[in-house]
Amino acid sequence: MSLILTLNAGSSSIKFALYEKTLKGDPPLIVRGKVERIGTAARLVVNDSDGKRMIDISASNHREALNAILEELKDDTKGRTVAGVGHRIVHGGPDFSAPVRISEANLEAIRALSPLAPLHQPHNVSAIEAALAEFPKAMQVGIFGTAFHAGKPFTQDAYGIPRRYYEAGVRRYGFHGLSYTYIAERLEARYPALYSGRVIVAHLGNGASMCAMKGGQSIATTMGFSALDGLCMGTRPGQLDPGVLLYLLDNEGMTSAEVSKMLYKESGLKGLSENTNDMRVLLESSDVKDKEAVAYFTARIQREIGSLTAALGGLDGIVFTGGIGENSAEIRAGIANGMGWIGLELNEAANEAGGPVIGSGAVQALVIPTNEELVMARAVVERL
Amino acid sequence: MSLILTLNAGSSSIKFALYEKTLKGDPPLIVRGKVERIGTAARLVVNDSDGKRMIDISASNHREALNAILEELKDDTKGRTVAGVGHRIVHGGPDFSAPVRISEANLEAIRALSPLAPLHQPHNVSAIEAALAEFPKAMQVGIFGTAFHAGKPFTQDAYGIPRRYYEAGVRRYGFHGLSYTYIAERLEARYPALYSGRVIVAHLGNGASMCAMKGGQSIATTMGFSALDGLCMGTRPGQLDPGVLLYLLDNEGMTSAEVSKMLYKESGLKGLSENTNDMRVLLESSDVKDKEAVAYFTARIQREIGSLTAALGGLDGIVFTGGIGENSAEIRAGIANGMGWIGLELNEAANEAGGPVIGSGAVQALVIPTNEELVMARAVVERL
Repeated sequence: MSLILTLNAGSSSIKFALYEKTLKGDPPLIVRGKVERIGTAARLVVNDSDGKRMIDISASNHREALNAILEELKDDTKGRTVAGVGHRIVHGGPDFSAPVRISEANLEAIRALSPLAPLHQPHNVSAIEAALAEFPKAMQVGIFGTAFHAGKPFTQDAYGIPRRYYEAGVRRYGFHGLSYTYIAERLEARYPALYSGRVIVAHLGNGASMCAMKGGQSIATTMGFSALDGLCMGTRPGQLDPGVLLYLLDNEGMTSAEVSKMLYKESGLKGLSENTNDMRVLLESSDVKDKEAVAYFTARIQREIGSLTAALGGLDGIVFTGGIGENSAEIRAGIANGMGWIGLELNEAANEAGGPVIGSGAVQALVIPTNEELVMARAVVERL
Repeated sequence: MSLILTLNAGSSSIKFALYEKTLKGDPPLIVRGKVERIGTAARLVVNDSDGKRMIDISASNHREALNAILEELKDDTKGRTVAGVGHRIVHGGPDFSAPVRISEANLEAIRALSPLAPLHQPHNVSAIEAALAEFPKAMQVGIFGTAFHAGKPFTQDAYGIPRRYYEAGVRRYGFHGLSYTYIAERLEARYPALYSGRVIVAHLGNGASMCAMKGGQSIATTMGFSALDGLCMGTRPGQLDPGVLLYLLDNEGMTSAEVSKMLYKESGLKGLSENTNDMRVLLESSDVKDKEAVAYFTARIQREIGSLTAALGGLDGIVFTGGIGENSAEIRAGIANGMGWIGLELNEAANEAGGPVIGSGAVQALVIPTNEELVMARAVVERL
């Protein structure tokens, strides 16, 4: 059987997964992993049937990181055909609302969207270029992080700025669409009543957003034009008064590049704790700043649950996913604490055990591990 | 009896009111009015026992506008003493949490806060300087628009950016504090159960914000560091992804001054409708852009009601005030429509009649006209 490779390039990492191509049903996973810390102390992390291992490597850029991945996969791909490669692409702009086969024209259009996601889109483009060179006969498929949110109502898609900007593409795109796609499909399969209802999916990781879903469609989301807005994240601020940016530019004399670096790399949990963006470390700390950072993270989620519920016109359930959402019973309990007014209450034992069903109130609560790679692999298989 | 004068200087207007000084109870109003359109086609609007009249005047700056006001008040002040002057001051920074008598040191501190409200604070300072020159023996009292919100919990006061900025004063100050003070006092006097509970006050005018109040204390508010954030306003955007600003700076080549002008003057209802910031005109229009601007205005309020309710841990009542909040039954009905999930339902006839009690659901709803001038006059009387 031939193979499917998925690539998910971030600003300093590339995640990969290799699947068997199947004719029917989900493709079986052979191996997954990532190169992280590209450009600094790069290492390759591999997860396969032998377990997990880490290998220090040299990778000063994404091309070298991809070479290291292909070298690692050589045994698995030897004598077999990589029939398709799925690429996660951060930004699909106003036009890409579903996965597409990468043509020259599409690649050019994807490249042209780089100003909308300057820190991420160029890496996605590099990965496509590298994969085209390495697997010239494979079908390359782009799967867009924004696509799940296409079709939101105008009131949840626009900003209150002059309309010409909306028409020029300044919209509330939203992100984490592969994760939301996976969760929506799981809800449809396992919890059809909830799938048909009004659900908030909380994708909580180092990046974090929430999606208000009705009948599997995105109605509203906490991230908008960029990956900065909404929830407090590991190193990104979430909701921020635009007046703060004007103040930093005009009174602190910062350049937009300095502001951008501060907002993408030095804010969020890391900035408030003055310690780390690692939630596990913060939760174990007794330092008051660490505790306040966690409290801020939780309070922002609570406020956005209220806000998204208004967009949905009521709430039937909430799904926790992503690294923190899947693994931290303490954060889930902190979010539910004080949200009894909306009907969110947790069964303590079930929450501690990790679910999947953890709610005990009128609003259902679930923990569902996400799987963005599988969403990509499925999209490739569908198009082969 | 001697007199109390109140001055409320905006970017292109000065509102004024003249009261009798009383020993006990609220001071009676003699005359109120404003100079508007300072610097362009200035005019004086006067409201007294003879009714309302408008006079075209020449006022190219705030000093000339104040002269026109004092000239107009000459008959009322002749032979009487202006014992105190109350000044609305937009920004009190982290330290001014109550009205203060203006001393040289206080005036310097107020002046030093100008970077936090560059479009407004300098006009407040000018008004104080002019009043000191005109009434050197009167007590000058500063009443701060931010003071009502002092003491909010850290999670509702901070942004998710590096902590040093919080310590340097980049906080969610909130505004419209004089209006909220008035409403809180009215609730305490007339609706004590609601006053003790969890209430959202919606101050909806050309500027607009909402305050989450518990026991008369501000717990959270939609405006934060600047007057740009939160709700969609006449010409200001409300909530906006910080990534949009970075995009405008880096990709549209705008300067921070151009972005600032666009956000303060060309956004909100005006920017989305490409027509006007006048809600009455928009409500009567059949143009799709005008309708979408109103729908956006309403949807943002609904989302922030959900968000503030999360900060309060539930909701007992909502109060509508400000020009739009007091006068537009259609907007109030639009807000309530779809908020049944939170317990907000309106009695249609009572809403059309303008209240005060308009709720018919589990969440009480009231219309209470605000009176910022009276809050200022009271603060002066208390200190005389």
